[in-house]
Amino acid sequence: VVAEVMGVGMVRDQALVERIEARFGGRGRTMPANNLRQADVPVGATAMSELPGTAPGLICPVGEKVLYTVPGVPWEMREMIEGTVLSDLRERAGISAVIRSRTLRTWGRSESGLAEQLADEIDRLDAGGASTLAFLASGMEGLKVRITAKAATDAEVESILDDEEAKVRAIIGPIVFGLDDQTMESVVLDELVAQGLTLATAESLTGGMIGSRLTAVSGSSRVFRGSVVAYAGDVKRGLLGVPEGPVVSEEAVTAMATGACRVLGADVSVAVTGVAGPEPHDGQEPGTVWMATCVDGRVEAVRARFPFDRTRTREFTVISVLDALRLRLLARRGA
Amino acid sequence: VVAEVMGVGMVRDQALVERIEARFGGRGRTMPANNLRQADVPVGATAMSELPGTAPGLICPVGEKVLYTVPGVPWEMREMIEGTVLSDLRERAGISAVIRSRTLRTWGRSESGLAEQLADEIDRLDAGGASTLAFLASGMEGLKVRITAKAATDAEVESILDDEEAKVRAIIGPIVFGLDDQTMESVVLDELVAQGLTLATAESLTGGMIGSRLTAVSGSSRVFRGSVVAYAGDVKRGLLGVPEGPVVSEEAVTAMATGACRVLGADVSVAVTGVAGPEPHDGQEPGTVWMATCVDGRVEAVRARFPFDRTRTREFTVISVLDALRLRLLARRGA
Repeated sequence: VVAEVMGVGMVRDQALVERIEARFGGRGRTMPANNLRQADVPVGATAMSELPGTAPGLICPVGEKVLYTVPGVPWEMREMIEGTVLSDLRERAGISAVIRSRTLRTWGRSESGLAEQLADEIDRLDAGGASTLAFLASGMEGLKVRITAKAATDAEVESILDDEEAKVRAIIGPIVFGLDDQTMESVVLDELVAQGLTLATAESLTGGMIGSRLTAVSGSSRVFRGSVVAYAGDVKRGLLGVPEGPVVSEEAVTAMATGACRVLGADVSVAVTGVAGPEPHDGQEPGTVWMATCVDGRVEAVRARFPFDRTRTREFTVISVLDALRLRLLARRGA
Repeated sequence: VVAEVMGVGMVRDQALVERIEARFGGRGRTMPANNLRQADVPVGATAMSELPGTAPGLICPVGEKVLYTVPGVPWEMREMIEGTVLSDLRERAGISAVIRSRTLRTWGRSESGLAEQLADEIDRLDAGGASTLAFLASGMEGLKVRITAKAATDAEVESILDDEEAKVRAIIGPIVFGLDDQTMESVVLDELVAQGLTLATAESLTGGMIGSRLTAVSGSSRVFRGSVVAYAGDVKRGLLGVPEGPVVSEEAVTAMATGACRVLGADVSVAVTGVAGPEPHDGQEPGTVWMATCVDGRVEAVRARFPFDRTRTREFTVISVLDALRLRLLARRGA
């Protein structure tokens, strides 16, 4: 179809054949014959440098215009659009004005609470400021405050963003845990590296989600020792030393936090136990969660009630307990 | 704005005030004053029954038309659109033709391999069949084959879907692990319930992701005992009994699988160790993964090479090892 629009024929791109074959070879599979057709491109088209799957993306000139073809698999498409299409478009358009955003990630306040705290600053910007503020609730990724600015040069934009970031931080303070691509996990891991501490986790209702998030960060092996996911009650008692009695309680989560440090040989730990729902458990309503952090041998525990479904209760538990650890680590180094 | 379009004024919906307050009360927070404004609705508008956050969705009649307002938070919007908007629209439109899809979830073959296997069937349907087939690669959710059919009645559509499902299954057979909302995790958990077996996991590169996925399924506590996430090498040796030597090896993953059953008191287990990347580890290239299943005391281990980034290597490991367990459980009951 694309070749018709371009008014040209098809040609087999031999370099592309080899790249596609390499992707199959890498997985120890033979290439089905119809994958060869993926290497047939319209004359004049260029394959994009990204090749996350086996389907190539193409840059197809059509007169003075350009047509991009990308695979329909979402993550393959995203990689090509971010990698090739956007910068190619920007270059062709000769765009010179710079628009840039900076995201402050926060945890511990609701979206409307944050909006109320920042209302005066938003009014000031609306009345003619150099930037804008927007909010985006993102579950386990935190509640984001995005500052956007536009100016003629990189340096000018950065200076506007720096100014506004300082103003916002002065108002909302320590609930900002990170910037842009930083996650709660990466921030906690960085702080542990800086203080030379190792980390363990003991998880019940999250079932391994805290460990999974921490180890999604490349380089986490320098800090993270492991996790005991104690889903059954007798595993909590046998492996982590949780005393007899209810497993959704301050006593249980405290024993889990100290048990995690002991069993996994770590300096600090986080522990969670609770009721993800939809059914009550141990006499507790869904959404009831106990979270604990252990730093320098001292455990601090806190109880929360999340009025969410199973998935969001688990996700809010993950970011909440890591935020509690973050605040204790900051206090530890006197920040 | 909506009230202007409707040509009416605003009124505070007292029932809505109470529902919003209840959501705040449930989290142990006080409601900021500006949340009250969320309860002001145009005269004649109805609040949707879903209230996942604190922002309501509204059904607003405008003459013979209707206008829906929903919050911008993606999961809140989705809940309202699936819960209220679609069925309301269908009712108003008096739609009688029924279009329905059924999704067969598969694992173990590439998208192009599957397309080649089903090529004759697709040609047959293209030449005038009662349904269509489409493929969708969905990472950890499996590679989906979606059958879509259209007919006058529910019964007719279901009969077409039944026929086509039988045809597809006859061709691609046991790589179909589930239908529609079933996930690899839910299928494995159901099979364990049916056979009266408990499950444990031992995880290295996945860092808790297998446990997290299993416990995302409501009711998993009947089957799942827990997980040992042994990220550090000495945790593998000390807690799971992995022998000295490389930790990305058949010996290590075998010891992890038997160790998981022993330490967590489970009947069957899965274990994984490998290199998520981006750096090599233990002399092995990124993407090298050893996976093991332990059933009736016997361990089977298999090695894979995934040519992906860190995230996808971990996700493919999760579904691959659970699929290996699924196939062994089916063999165990002679299916």
